[in-house]
Amino acid sequence: MSTSSYAPRDGSVVATAEDTSADEVLARVDAATRVAALAAESSPAERRRWLDAIAKAVEDHRGELVEIADRETALGATRLRAEVARMADQLRFYGRVAIEGGYLGVAIDDATDTAPQLVRVNRPLGPVAVFGSSNFPFGFGVLGTDTGSAIAAGCPVVAKAHSAHLSTCLRLAEIARDALEAVGAPRDILSIIVGRQAGADLVAAAGIKAVGFTGSQAVGVKLWHIANQREEVVPVYAEMGTVNPAVVTRAGIDRIDEIARGFVGSFTLGAGQFCTKPGVLFAPAGRGVAEAVAESLRAAAPEPTMLTKAIAADVLSGLDEMVAAGARVVVRLPGSGAGWSADSAVLSAPINALMPGSRLLEECFGPVALVVEYATDHELTEGIRSLQGSLAAAVFGADADDPDLAHVVQVLSGQVGRVTVGDWPTGVAWTWAQQHGGPWPATSRPESTSVGAAALSRFVRPVTFQSVPNAALPPTERAATAPENPWKISRRVNGEMVSP
Amino acid sequence: MSTSSYAPRDGSVVATAEDTSADEVLARVDAATRVAALAAESSPAERRRWLDAIAKAVEDHRGELVEIADRETALGATRLRAEVARMADQLRFYGRVAIEGGYLGVAIDDATDTAPQLVRVNRPLGPVAVFGSSNFPFGFGVLGTDTGSAIAAGCPVVAKAHSAHLSTCLRLAEIARDALEAVGAPRDILSIIVGRQAGADLVAAAGIKAVGFTGSQAVGVKLWHIANQREEVVPVYAEMGTVNPAVVTRAGIDRIDEIARGFVGSFTLGAGQFCTKPGVLFAPAGRGVAEAVAESLRAAAPEPTMLTKAIAADVLSGLDEMVAAGARVVVRLPGSGAGWSADSAVLSAPINALMPGSRLLEECFGPVALVVEYATDHELTEGIRSLQGSLAAAVFGADADDPDLAHVVQVLSGQVGRVTVGDWPTGVAWTWAQQHGGPWPATSRPESTSVGAAALSRFVRPVTFQSVPNAALPPTERAATAPENPWKISRRVNGEMVSP
Repeated sequence: MSTSSYAPRDGSVVATAEDTSADEVLARVDAATRVAALAAESSPAERRRWLDAIAKAVEDHRGELVEIADRETALGATRLRAEVARMADQLRFYGRVAIEGGYLGVAIDDATDTAPQLVRVNRPLGPVAVFGSSNFPFGFGVLGTDTGSAIAAGCPVVAKAHSAHLSTCLRLAEIARDALEAVGAPRDILSIIVGRQAGADLVAAAGIKAVGFTGSQAVGVKLWHIANQREEVVPVYAEMGTVNPAVVTRAGIDRIDEIARGFVGSFTLGAGQFCTKPGVLFAPAGRGVAEAVAESLRAAAPEPTMLTKAIAADVLSGLDEMVAAGARVVVRLPGSGAGWSADSAVLSAPINALMPGSRLLEECFGPVALVVEYATDHELTEGIRSLQGSLAAAVFGADADDPDLAHVVQVLSGQVGRVTVGDWPTGVAWTWAQQHGGPWPATSRPESTSVGAAALSRFVRPVTFQSVPNAALPPTERAATAPENPWKISRRVNGEMVSP
Repeated sequence: MSTSSYAPRDGSVVATAEDTSADEVLARVDAATRVAALAAESSPAERRRWLDAIAKAVEDHRGELVEIADRETALGATRLRAEVARMADQLRFYGRVAIEGGYLGVAIDDATDTAPQLVRVNRPLGPVAVFGSSNFPFGFGVLGTDTGSAIAAGCPVVAKAHSAHLSTCLRLAEIARDALEAVGAPRDILSIIVGRQAGADLVAAAGIKAVGFTGSQAVGVKLWHIANQREEVVPVYAEMGTVNPAVVTRAGIDRIDEIARGFVGSFTLGAGQFCTKPGVLFAPAGRGVAEAVAESLRAAAPEPTMLTKAIAADVLSGLDEMVAAGARVVVRLPGSGAGWSADSAVLSAPINALMPGSRLLEECFGPVALVVEYATDHELTEGIRSLQGSLAAAVFGADADDPDLAHVVQVLSGQVGRVTVGDWPTGVAWTWAQQHGGPWPATSRPESTSVGAAALSRFVRPVTFQSVPNAALPPTERAATAPENPWKISRRVNGEMVSP
C-alpha cells in the first residue's frame, strides 16, 4: 500500500510514499517510548531549547516549505508564508509556557496534625500520536500546535502524515529531526508515519498514551473508538468542528453592509476550510440580511480551490443536501471548473428548519453559509440551542452598550468554547487565555484546548507524592517542589498561590 | 421494581424503596436543569454558604446517621462517626476551594497589535450524576466528595442511592435538601434516585453533563459505555480502583515486623474494603516476609463482616481464583460465619506469576493480600510494571537516605496517582495537593482527582471571551475578570500569575 498527494489545481500526483507497516509503526512507538524518560526528565528550559531549534529550522526552510505546501494545498504563498511564521511562533510560545511552569500545577501541602506532607506535580503522559489537519499544513500539522504543546509538556510525538500534503509532512519531520539532533536532543522526539491503516495502528499501540487530532467528525470519532477499545484506554483530544454560529443583534442591523462583507470574508477564508468558519448567521427578520450577504459574496467573487477531491465533492453534495433539508439558495457562484474547484454559496432557511438531525446542523466544509432570520429573543435562543456544540461564536451588535449583547453572549457561552463580540471567529490567537475547543461533538474533550497555553495540560497527569523526601523525588518533581524553587515557578503552597 | 438494603450482621432487610421510574428520573434531571443557571450564576461565596449549611446539618444529625449507616454497613460506630466528620469537613473544604477561585482558571490577555483581548474562565458544566461508593457511605456517598466538589463548582447534583445503604442515602438527601431550603437555596440543587435501571437512565439523560462514580470496574465501565453512546458524549469520572502495590526495599527489611503489622492494619482496614488497600507487597526474596505478614494477621485476628452478600461471596471466590492463578495460601483465617462474614488471608506468589490477564493483577475487594518476592531491581521494576494502573503505591525503606528509594518512587510514579514513602495508602487527605486517581483502569480519567481541591476541575470547562465588553459578560465571568478583582482571586494576566 502507498499514499499519494495531489495538486488541487490540476489533480496531478505530487508525491507518493509507502505506507508504514504495522511492525514499523510499533518500531516508531518503541523508539518514542525509549526517549520518553529522557523527555520527561529534561527540564522545561531544555525542551524550550528543542522547540526554539525546530522553530528556527522551519523558518530557515520557509521558502522550500511554502513551495511544497502550495503545490499540495493551493492555499497560496501569502497565506502559507504567514502560516509558517505562525508555526514557528507557536513552537516558541509553547517553549515559553513550559518554562513558566504553570502547566506543572505544582501544589505543596506541608504536613499538619491531621494530614501528611503532599506535593502534587503534573507529569508527562508519554508518547503522543498527532493527526494534523488538512487545512493548516503548518499551524495544525506535523509541527503544529499539538506537537508543540506535547513536546513542551515532555512527551515525544509520533505524527501521522496527512495524505493531502504528504511531502510537506515528510519534509517537516525531516527538518525537525535534524534540528533536534543538531541541538543534542534525540531525533525520536518526533517521528512520522504514513497511511490510513498505520494511523489506526498507531492509536491502538500500547505505547501511545494520548492522541491529538484535528479534522472531520467521522475520522475523529473513529480514532476515539479505537482508543476506547484499548486495554489501557487513553485520551483522544479530537478537535472536529461543527457549525459555528454568528449573530446580528437588532441594533447591529444598522451596520449590516459591513457585517455582510465581514461574514463573507470569514466564511470564504481559505476556501471556507476553517474549523472556526461561521456557518450560520442569525439575523433579525425582514431586514434583507440574506440578500445583503449574497450581494457581498457576488462582489467578493471567490474562486475557491479545495484541498482534496473529496472535499470539493462534499461541497457540492452538501449544497444539495442543505437544499433538501429546507434551505433556499440565495446565491450560488459556480467554481472555475479547474482542478478541485467548488461553488460558493449563501443559503437561507426558516429558523424552525433547525430540527434535531437536520443536515443544516452539520458542517459544510467549504465556502458555503446559511442565513437564518429570527423574529424574537425566544426564537434566537432556541435557534442557537438547536445547534450542536461548536468551537466559536460571534456576536455583532451596535456598540458596547447594545442591550442585546449580554443575553446573546450568555446563551452562546453555553454552546461554544469561545465567544467573540465584533470579531469574526476565524482567527485563533495562540496566547495564554485562548480556548479552542467546544462541547461535544465540536471536540471530544470540551475541557481541553488545542491552542493556547492550556494545550499542554492535555498531555500530563498529576501525581501526588506523600511524605516522600525531596531527594527521592524524580528530577522534575524534585526541582519543581524544592524549597529554593530553582525554576522560579508559581506554586500553590498550603492552598495559596505563591509567585516566585 | 424496588430496591432493598440489608443488615450485613444478620442478612435481614433494613429498608425498601420503590425504584425511580424512567419518567421520574427525567423529571429530577429537568428540575436540576432548571436550577443549573442559578447555580452557575451564584457566587462562590454563595455556594460556600450552601455547603456550610449542609455540613452543619449532617453534623447535627450525626447520631441518627451513624445509627442508620451502622445497621446497613456494619462498619461500626467509631469509624462511621469519623466518616460523618470527614463528610462535613470535605463539604466545607470544597466551599473554601470555591471562594479561593483557582478552579475558575481565570486568564486575561489584553489586546496587542497582533492578538485581540481574550479572557478565559471555567464555567460549570450543568447537572452532574453522582454514584457514591459502597464502602464510604458518607465520605464518598450522596454528600461525599463528588457532590461537594460539583456543588462547589456550580453544578446541581442528581445522586443515585447506593443499594447497600439505601436508607442512609435517602436520609442524607433529605437532610441536605432541607438545609438548602433553610439557607435560601433551591432544594433541587441536590436530588436522589433509586434503582439500577434508574441509574442507567440517569447517565443517558440529555440534561446530565458529567458523571462522578466510585465503585467497581464492572459498573464504572458500564456507565462509561452508556455515556459514550449518548448523542452528546459527556465525561464519566469513574474511580474504580485496582491492585495498589507496596514495596519493601532491601534496607527496609530491617523493619519488617513493624512493616508487616502496618501492612495487615492497612489491608484489613474496613474489612479490606478500601479502594486504596495495598493489595500486593513486593519484598526482598528469601527473608520470610510472607510468613511475617501471616504472623501479623494471626495476631490481629480480624473478624471481617462485608458490606454486601455479593462482596462476601466475591472474597471467597477471589481467594480460590488467586490460588488457581498460581498463588499459595500462607495463612487463611476463617470468618465468624455470622451474616456476611468473610475469611481473611495472606497469599504469596512467584513474581513471574504476574502475567498479563492473570487474576493476581485484579483487585480482591476484602481482607486479602498477596506477597511477592523480588531478587533484583530488574525483577522489582518488571513486577511493578506488570500491574494495571492504580490509585496509590507505598514504599517502605530504611530512612530518607535509603539508596533504593528514588528508583522505586520513580517506577511507581509511572503507574499510580499517589506515591507514599513510609505511609500506608489507605488514608486519603482532602487537601490542596491531593491526587486520588490513577491510570486506566484505576480511573477512567487519570488526569482528574475525586479528592482534593482539583476535584472541582472535573465539573467545569473553559470558555474564552474575545473582545467582549466586561458589562456583556455573564455574572461569574464579569466578576472573575473585572479590573478591580472583586473576588480577590489569583489570575493569570498577560501570562503572569497575579495574586490579589
